[in-house]
Amino acid sequence: MTHPAVIDELMTLVDPGKVLTDPVSLDAYGKDWTKHYPPAPTAIVFPKTVEQVQAIVRWANQHHVALVPSGGRTGLSAGAVAANGEVVVAFDYMNQIVGFNAFDRTVVCQPGVITRQLQAFAEEQGLYYPVDFASSGSSQIGGNIGTNAGGIKVIRYGMTRNWVAGLKVVTGKGELLELNKDLIKNATGYDLRQLFIGAEGTLGFVVEATMRLDRAPRNLTAMVLGTPDFDSIMPVLHAFQGKLDLTAFEFFSDKGLAKIMARGDVPAPFDTDCPFYALLEFEASTEEVANQALTTFEHCVEQGWVLDGVMSQSETQLKNLWKLREYLSETISHWTPYKNDISVTVSKVPAFLRDIDAIVSEHYPDYEVVWYGHIGDGNLHLNILKPEHMSKDDFFASCTKVNKWVFEIVQRYNGSISAEHGVGMTKRDYLGYSRSPEEIACMKAIKAIFDPNGIMNPGKIFAPEQEQ
Amino acid sequence: MTHPAVIDELMTLVDPGKVLTDPVSLDAYGKDWTKHYPPAPTAIVFPKTVEQVQAIVRWANQHHVALVPSGGRTGLSAGAVAANGEVVVAFDYMNQIVGFNAFDRTVVCQPGVITRQLQAFAEEQGLYYPVDFASSGSSQIGGNIGTNAGGIKVIRYGMTRNWVAGLKVVTGKGELLELNKDLIKNATGYDLRQLFIGAEGTLGFVVEATMRLDRAPRNLTAMVLGTPDFDSIMPVLHAFQGKLDLTAFEFFSDKGLAKIMARGDVPAPFDTDCPFYALLEFEASTEEVANQALTTFEHCVEQGWVLDGVMSQSETQLKNLWKLREYLSETISHWTPYKNDISVTVSKVPAFLRDIDAIVSEHYPDYEVVWYGHIGDGNLHLNILKPEHMSKDDFFASCTKVNKWVFEIVQRYNGSISAEHGVGMTKRDYLGYSRSPEEIACMKAIKAIFDPNGIMNPGKIFAPEQEQ
Repeated sequence: MTHPAVIDELMTLVDPGKVLTDPVSLDAYGKDWTKHYPPAPTAIVFPKTVEQVQAIVRWANQHHVALVPSGGRTGLSAGAVAANGEVVVAFDYMNQIVGFNAFDRTVVCQPGVITRQLQAFAEEQGLYYPVDFASSGSSQIGGNIGTNAGGIKVIRYGMTRNWVAGLKVVTGKGELLELNKDLIKNATGYDLRQLFIGAEGTLGFVVEATMRLDRAPRNLTAMVLGTPDFDSIMPVLHAFQGKLDLTAFEFFSDKGLAKIMARGDVPAPFDTDCPFYALLEFEASTEEVANQALTTFEHCVEQGWVLDGVMSQSETQLKNLWKLREYLSETISHWTPYKNDISVTVSKVPAFLRDIDAIVSEHYPDYEVVWYGHIGDGNLHLNILKPEHMSKDDFFASCTKVNKWVFEIVQRYNGSISAEHGVGMTKRDYLGYSRSPEEIACMKAIKAIFDPNGIMNPGKIFAPEQEQ
Repeated sequence: MTHPAVIDELMTLVDPGKVLTDPVSLDAYGKDWTKHYPPAPTAIVFPKTVEQVQAIVRWANQHHVALVPSGGRTGLSAGAVAANGEVVVAFDYMNQIVGFNAFDRTVVCQPGVITRQLQAFAEEQGLYYPVDFASSGSSQIGGNIGTNAGGIKVIRYGMTRNWVAGLKVVTGKGELLELNKDLIKNATGYDLRQLFIGAEGTLGFVVEATMRLDRAPRNLTAMVLGTPDFDSIMPVLHAFQGKLDLTAFEFFSDKGLAKIMARGDVPAPFDTDCPFYALLEFEASTEEVANQALTTFEHCVEQGWVLDGVMSQSETQLKNLWKLREYLSETISHWTPYKNDISVTVSKVPAFLRDIDAIVSEHYPDYEVVWYGHIGDGNLHLNILKPEHMSKDDFFASCTKVNKWVFEIVQRYNGSISAEHGVGMTKRDYLGYSRSPEEIACMKAIKAIFDPNGIMNPGKIFAPEQEQ
């Protein structure tokens, strides 16, 4: 455990004033968007250079201090929470875009660059950074890489992993590794870059990342379609995917829509009430493409898969349709939802959702369940809303039972207990539902290579007792 | 070292007749398309099931027998060569497509499925497997994964890595791991699947792979453009990339074209002689796109970047234009070329090529150099042709000197000594030009996790003395 002398030494390693120990900072930097674990870091340190990061790691190894990498702290699995006296390493002062190459379509980012900052920079160059999600106004590139962030455009553009051309990392040993050197083709042994993507800071710190950009999308156009039941969403997806290059295929339930309508600031998509809604997006780059979309829509109506629908005719309409989906997470946060972020292969989604719905409604008929998610990727967000009369503690205690049932179903369907939020602390005890004991043993052995003293974000991904 | 009793035991682990030790088989299965190392395996074994693969691995661990995974043996870095008494594990009898899901657009392949077999299967479903290269008629999916095969469509579709939804592997310990379970989103710790992709069989065997398919391309159309110098190719790439979604952007030199013309079976693209040629491809899905391509072509001519050009108007013309590029490797093989497969970031290509050209022509003014490659990915194939009068041994001995110069330039440009052919035996002594000592140490430590006794393809990627 750390004590003042050790913190004094830490202060000598960074710029003046770049170690904070006041209660407000400890509270602010010790937590993420999960609120289950009370923050309790010992100090917050703000490196400004790669050399300072290396010095911090060497210091931590010497004094056996646990380090927690901290980005925008928008995580939903407590991957960046410091609940046990750790020192938080925050990248707020390594937040610059330090390079751009128009031929390579690459941007060199310090880890603290905000996702939206990168998106805006790309737009200024007439290009596009396609990874986008609700927290992109606060999340940082280093954190996106640590969790292999996904979001709403994965069906077309893939996860963050696809956009990392090169990484500079400082391992838990303090070594600086330059991984992949921004190359498109590089067949020289194991691609260590891939290990650091999605490692949740348990192997080391991302200290620089070269991100790829894509061409700007052309005339993005959205459709919202109402379906008579959940199962109809699948042939709709299949029909549109066969005709168009979709950039998104999301869904939400009538209960979700009702919450959005109750806000009063988002127009209804159409009058027909439907139990489920799909939101799809594509580039209407030519009139031919837009016509193809309308023809496919008509086909879906004829087949009885779609009851009603609307297509955006302007940028404003596009934005309004997206609000139906994008405002959901924030809107239902009022009901203190118990959230699960789970995935299966796309074709299994209907049966999987039915099984989970059945078990939740059997045991908790009074709970309101709001489903939404990235159905084109097989990624469902299950939200159980807290009944008004119930205490938060009682509610979450009862949801812990739900966890087990949900994860048993996930396991039966060969799915993932965490599609895009990571394992962190909230899912670590359930890792075995998605990964075998042999895989977990391999992962721990890999961690021991890069972080032999276990200073990097201990207690994340693996439960503490498992680490030894 | 193995001896007959051990081979007798091996025979009991697989189906009758599925261990071969005759000289013809040992020769055929002991080598790949490189011809530097005389094949000298002890036996060839053909498993038919995952359980048999596991039994072979357990047997190898028990008797300290080295195993060499063998696919289509089309490798160009001796990654599948058995030159030291190893037992070759060949997947010729695990060559079935065992599953297909139209919703998920996934195909479950045994490792011995031939690339072209998968491509044809995809076409039958109205879909597309986009990884394609000269040896796709012989190469196997397991081998493609082992080398993370690239080829001619990487600029649009990426490497093999992008198309692997899930992997079943048998590690060097004999454990069966099911990696990623074909999910699109899965944030449950380190993505071990990525380690096995490009590992050249040094960690274990791929025993099943779920590959993703894409929608079929629409009206693929090629252009061949002649440029006044190499540097002009770059603004041409930039101009077209800004306007079209390219599916390929290749190049070759006048010397390459001359060799193709001398065959007599491929029509010339146009009459104008140019020192360099670009071949680009795109989906002319609408007339608008085709017009955009022509407008961009005219712009490039006006700028002086392009001297002449042609655009395919039919499937036959498309195929003929591709022959100019695709027949190159086979055509120049007559001159026993010394080949290098190197890459840098795209923007560095002109300066990099100039530096290598200068050093080769300074020291070997009599050698004919043929350049071609996947310029849209920064991947250049450098081919030095053997002068008629020179012996093969003398020629390759002198090229070994070239190796060092080339790789020093690669290192200076932060490039890769092997863009897509892998390290195998031919590049293992040069690995340090692309990977740091710290990275190599991490890679060896990772190998030790999955293959503690070093039975998996020893002497590949890492030089034998480095393995201990």
